[in-house]
Amino acid sequence: MATRDSLSLAIASTQQIDPYLPHVSSSNPSLKPYVTLTFATSLDSNLSLSPGTQTTLSGPLSKAMTHYLRSKHDAILIGVGTANADNPSLNCRFEGVGGYGGQGLEGQPRPVILDPSGRWDVSEQSKVIQLASTGRGRGPLVLTYTEPQIAMKELLEKVSGKFISMFQQSNTKESTPRFQWADLLAVLSREGITSVMVEGGGAVINDLLHPSNITLVNSVIVTIAPVWLGKGGVQVCPEERVDGGSKVSVGRLGNVKWVPLGDDVVLCGRPSV
Amino acid sequence: MATRDSLSLAIASTQQIDPYLPHVSSSNPSLKPYVTLTFATSLDSNLSLSPGTQTTLSGPLSKAMTHYLRSKHDAILIGVGTANADNPSLNCRFEGVGGYGGQGLEGQPRPVILDPSGRWDVSEQSKVIQLASTGRGRGPLVLTYTEPQIAMKELLEKVSGKFISMFQQSNTKESTPRFQWADLLAVLSREGITSVMVEGGGAVINDLLHPSNITLVNSVIVTIAPVWLGKGGVQVCPEERVDGGSKVSVGRLGNVKWVPLGDDVVLCGRPSV
Repeated sequence: MATRDSLSLAIASTQQIDPYLPHVSSSNPSLKPYVTLTFATSLDSNLSLSPGTQTTLSGPLSKAMTHYLRSKHDAILIGVGTANADNPSLNCRFEGVGGYGGQGLEGQPRPVILDPSGRWDVSEQSKVIQLASTGRGRGPLVLTYTEPQIAMKELLEKVSGKFISMFQQSNTKESTPRFQWADLLAVLSREGITSVMVEGGGAVINDLLHPSNITLVNSVIVTIAPVWLGKGGVQVCPEERVDGGSKVSVGRLGNVKWVPLGDDVVLCGRPSV
Repeated sequence: MATRDSLSLAIASTQQIDPYLPHVSSSNPSLKPYVTLTFATSLDSNLSLSPGTQTTLSGPLSKAMTHYLRSKHDAILIGVGTANADNPSLNCRFEGVGGYGGQGLEGQPRPVILDPSGRWDVSEQSKVIQLASTGRGRGPLVLTYTEPQIAMKELLEKVSGKFISMFQQSNTKESTPRFQWADLLAVLSREGITSVMVEGGGAVINDLLHPSNITLVNSVIVTIAPVWLGKGGVQVCPEERVDGGSKVSVGRLGNVKWVPLGDDVVLCGRPSV
């Protein structure tokens, strides 16, 4: 049964996207979760008008699709910048999942926050905590290099979330430390997560599109809205790649499908570098 | 009859694009030509890997579509930077137009080069001159603020092209002078041009997407290829727009249609700012 604020999508749309979603069987366990990279941009590849602001780019159908995708993954992952800027819900509101017409927390993904330096400004009022405490979402996993405060630990544990303090390798001792994606995915795997949807923000997406990381991505689902945001926005544009002294493209998608959805288009593909 | 190097496109594709093309009748003359803005970008909104280089982004079907579009316009317009970097043909090789199975120069658009400072490095060896001198394209119109050299004038006149020296208004006396689009389109109109397809490069496209110019555009046709080129490329990303103290989107397309074409997608729309 649908609830007031649940979302739904025509079967015609889901059938086109399904081949790009994780299909993990228990007889085929993997050390690495299935990774889906997904985000929405403008025509000029901007995620938002400016850093720290949230820009609604895509239409209601694209929103429903995002929640359909969330229902098909064990976890959804964002960086701490997005967590602080957007106060996101990070749950799934697709019709029929737990809390939205379904039983328990069935179909609800685990939120994962990448917070290497311990910057997440989370409180009892944060949407993700409120939804978890009212049975409409799971408690978040926070991956960090720091030792969290006791009050923060208690806040998360009350909603069945937790901090995981990772060992910081020598090559990540930068002013803004960055995770090694292979290590990070191994941690998620040990937590029983077999599929993860990486949603943003700009720094996380550009890092994952780097040639040394993109091979870890199983599928890419990008929504493009027919709008230009202009200079000064948060842009998806990975670091340049040089091969044999010449600049070459950073990455290409194969097995491509373009699915028009309202005024937007959804691009599904698999990295083919 | 098709010739060896002519291009063709399935009717299913052309039927989807046709509503966005100029339909000018002689009983409805206009002071301004119908303006179609068209270009191909990567997912990160790059036209090419770096300034001054040409990057093949889109597949063979997209190329055929570009030539179909050219056959439907009186003129195609590019900036001098692109003219110098690419040595472009600037003709139409769509099956059935003049020089490619058709009579005379029927369906061949007039190349227009925007060259305010007289930087175009054109010679008898330039493709656009060679094609015009062998009946497979029209001689170019060059719009400039300078007085061209006699040899250059003769070169163009030999292929029925010409220079048009425009009056430089006080507000365009910059180090790199820029054309006022309304003036420029009025000049083209006086030359009998009722429709023009603006193809590039980055500076010309970003200038035309500026809020003060985009209202002159009748339709936009953008091909997007499923590839990321990375930082340092030539990007379509217009100047930011501020309204009431807040940053807002620069422009949005209405009447949108997304047409998958091979691995690429073609976005057709009309500015709705």
